[in-house]
Amino acid sequence: MPETKTKKSDDFNEWYNEIVELADLCDKRYPIKGMNVWKPYGWKLMNNVDALIRDEMSHTRHQEVYFPLLIPESYFKKEEEHIEGFGSEVYWITHAGLNKLEERWLLRPTSETAMYPIFSLWIRSHTDLPLKTFQIVNTFRYETKQTRAFIRVREIHFFEAHTCHIDFVDAEKQIQEDKDIAHRLMKKLCLPYIFSKRPDWDKFAGAYYTISIDVLMPSGRTLQIGSIHQYKDNFAKPYEISYETEEGSHEYCHQTTYGMSERLLGAIIGVHGDDKGLILPPEVSPIQVAIIPIIFKGKDKDVLDACKKLQNKLEDEHIRTHLDLRDITPGNKFYDWELKGVPIRIEIGPRDIEKKEYVLVRRDQEKKQSLSQDSATTAIKIALENIAKDLLTKADQLLKNNIHRVFTVDEAKKKAGIIELPWCGKEECALEIEAMLEGNTLGVPLTDTDCNKVCPICNKNSVSLMRYAKTY
Amino acid sequence: MPETKTKKSDDFNEWYNEIVELADLCDKRYPIKGMNVWKPYGWKLMNNVDALIRDEMSHTRHQEVYFPLLIPESYFKKEEEHIEGFGSEVYWITHAGLNKLEERWLLRPTSETAMYPIFSLWIRSHTDLPLKTFQIVNTFRYETKQTRAFIRVREIHFFEAHTCHIDFVDAEKQIQEDKDIAHRLMKKLCLPYIFSKRPDWDKFAGAYYTISIDVLMPSGRTLQIGSIHQYKDNFAKPYEISYETEEGSHEYCHQTTYGMSERLLGAIIGVHGDDKGLILPPEVSPIQVAIIPIIFKGKDKDVLDACKKLQNKLEDEHIRTHLDLRDITPGNKFYDWELKGVPIRIEIGPRDIEKKEYVLVRRDQEKKQSLSQDSATTAIKIALENIAKDLLTKADQLLKNNIHRVFTVDEAKKKAGIIELPWCGKEECALEIEAMLEGNTLGVPLTDTDCNKVCPICNKNSVSLMRYAKTY
Repeated sequence: MPETKTKKSDDFNEWYNEIVELADLCDKRYPIKGMNVWKPYGWKLMNNVDALIRDEMSHTRHQEVYFPLLIPESYFKKEEEHIEGFGSEVYWITHAGLNKLEERWLLRPTSETAMYPIFSLWIRSHTDLPLKTFQIVNTFRYETKQTRAFIRVREIHFFEAHTCHIDFVDAEKQIQEDKDIAHRLMKKLCLPYIFSKRPDWDKFAGAYYTISIDVLMPSGRTLQIGSIHQYKDNFAKPYEISYETEEGSHEYCHQTTYGMSERLLGAIIGVHGDDKGLILPPEVSPIQVAIIPIIFKGKDKDVLDACKKLQNKLEDEHIRTHLDLRDITPGNKFYDWELKGVPIRIEIGPRDIEKKEYVLVRRDQEKKQSLSQDSATTAIKIALENIAKDLLTKADQLLKNNIHRVFTVDEAKKKAGIIELPWCGKEECALEIEAMLEGNTLGVPLTDTDCNKVCPICNKNSVSLMRYAKTY
Repeated sequence: MPETKTKKSDDFNEWYNEIVELADLCDKRYPIKGMNVWKPYGWKLMNNVDALIRDEMSHTRHQEVYFPLLIPESYFKKEEEHIEGFGSEVYWITHAGLNKLEERWLLRPTSETAMYPIFSLWIRSHTDLPLKTFQIVNTFRYETKQTRAFIRVREIHFFEAHTCHIDFVDAEKQIQEDKDIAHRLMKKLCLPYIFSKRPDWDKFAGAYYTISIDVLMPSGRTLQIGSIHQYKDNFAKPYEISYETEEGSHEYCHQTTYGMSERLLGAIIGVHGDDKGLILPPEVSPIQVAIIPIIFKGKDKDVLDACKKLQNKLEDEHIRTHLDLRDITPGNKFYDWELKGVPIRIEIGPRDIEKKEYVLVRRDQEKKQSLSQDSATTAIKIALENIAKDLLTKADQLLKNNIHRVFTVDEAKKKAGIIELPWCGKEECALEIEAMLEGNTLGVPLTDTDCNKVCPICNKNSVSLMRYAKTY
């Protein structure tokens, strides 16, 4: 049976690179760097995460759309900051068949410039607002840095919500809804996170402001798994997205976007996994319960019948269950499902049947637990809930232990993880600290914003805290 | 309320072009020809069709994967016939950011050349076979002909199943399974179809043989909505997909593919629609029942309560229900849901409540029907089933009335639809008939293959029938 050569605790990044392939999430042997093959198990996991996102979108009345992948260069260039931000990161199509195109087309790095000219046709009146749409699509960025599965890739599995509103205040309400969505979603993935308001020089190209959603990985580096942008009317003006008010005047829309990607998988893998492999949050695990018959020689009809009976019972309760009938030893099956992160393993052998029991093993614990057959379904449901709770608690602890509020750069240098330092509000001071810490600014906390101390660089009074971390 | 300017019976193609936008399926104003925007209603319909495909794939133990969109030119060129067939139809990426790529990449027109080098890594032994995979992805073809929404587009929403087998016989079993899948799926879409084995000169680039799945549109033209290909070892050899047999020797795999696309929507729209708009098969209709309160002035609490009660009842039974509370007249609502093809409309007014009844109107019929409140859910379920049956029967009639088995080209010229003529087996005779009929060869029927007559061109004995039609 395969195992990671590297221990998570010894070398997180190497462990990560090994586990994504060993656990059958992806195949990195595709010949274009940063474009990996999604294997069935990984794709199923991603689809389960997408299903949670679609649920959230449905409850908040966002409508799913699909816009073309290709964007004409002239459309792309309407918003100046946007093209500056993305111009060096896009792939260009120049030829179709044997013909050279009259105008170059690019692969969407994100869909503002494909959607907004059409939004300007869809929106006529205040009664068309708010317009709340989203899509889950492949997007493309020409990454020149080292790629890493699910974390830094060139074909990105991307969720993007785009909304249009009558004014800034209504757009701000959307931002609040987005934060609530993030909160509910991340809880289901058992992932604690922080919101930070990005500094002006590091916001999304074209945005009025950007809130990043960051997860702390066990390596001490943060991973940005999503972002929420307030665009104000920055895009509405060049793309002419305006509406007629009740009073008959014409106003530009205010817009927001909310984006997340397969980095959610990167966070799940990194935060929860251990030396044995993945540990998947029950809500999204492709298999929630693996049933393993304990038969060493030949077949035992009673054991198989008991296994099938339990499988049927669990499936009736919509618990995703797999009965492992492969012709390998139970021990090898244990290793395999541990590697793949299945939250619960049920063992059923001849002695268990005599005692009218099953054996339950939680992926996140060592110990075996006996279940009476009669109450097994309930016990398994409770165990799934407890696993989710415990994963979140453990991850919460990791995050809390690694956010350090300090007041000098020297103190900061002694800490790993996320550093919060007083900030005077000047770009140059933050950049100097970035350099001294060999990290990046994450941004300003949304609540508990200031500490009323002085900037460790210029000694001026702080206007807020600023967060720094080494990042992926 | 919008209505098509053109009647379906007067000018099918023009009616089609109007209805796809009026019914909110897509927006054709995107600036790249043949790349349309999927609006929420159209995308939901497509997703419902995809869900049926995924169900079929799951039952037949195909696993969903996702391969990269971009294919290096060198990979693409390994199978000679394939590159000849597709070379003039692909989009080329030549630049990333400001850099020229060392090797050009193309957007997948279909994924053989992306998948098969990886399959050759996945398959080692006979125990790895059969390998049954599929994906639902965006693919791209540079169409130079006139584009038409869902029928001839340049970004294609594509389903592609790819399988590998130990030998030709096992691959043939897969072809049979694919035909069974097509049969079940098309029944749910209420679409009759014909299988034809394409003539050698018109098969898929690289295939050993191709079976096309064609639907007859009311214009008398056929629409190919899918195809099933037997590749034999034509791709396995250049891509080195081989396995070790039980005896220890090495053999090439035999492969099949099965493809379908958004053309399924084109067929649904074209075959079932009428002058009032779409008529959607209940199985895939985004809304199966529209409930319309009949209140002309102000609000009537009793009516609204009754509407909500029925909505809850139907949703409990997993019937997709929409309660239309818009501030427009009931008549306008009727028009709108007729345009969008919702199978059942329920009207509830004050008099209906007094009589403890609802009024049901089937989209495919004119007449109103009273339902007792108590048995409404059952009656609505039965009505949905009957609509599906009747749509299929009607469409079956259209197909049967328009397949003409004749023996001379003169007879054929008098007929519209699908022509079956005796064929000697020679390409030049078929091509001559194509030219005389201003149509295309569809291929040879899979059953009831021959008529034992003579070729109308060369007078030699027929070896089979050959089908001809004008095509989309």
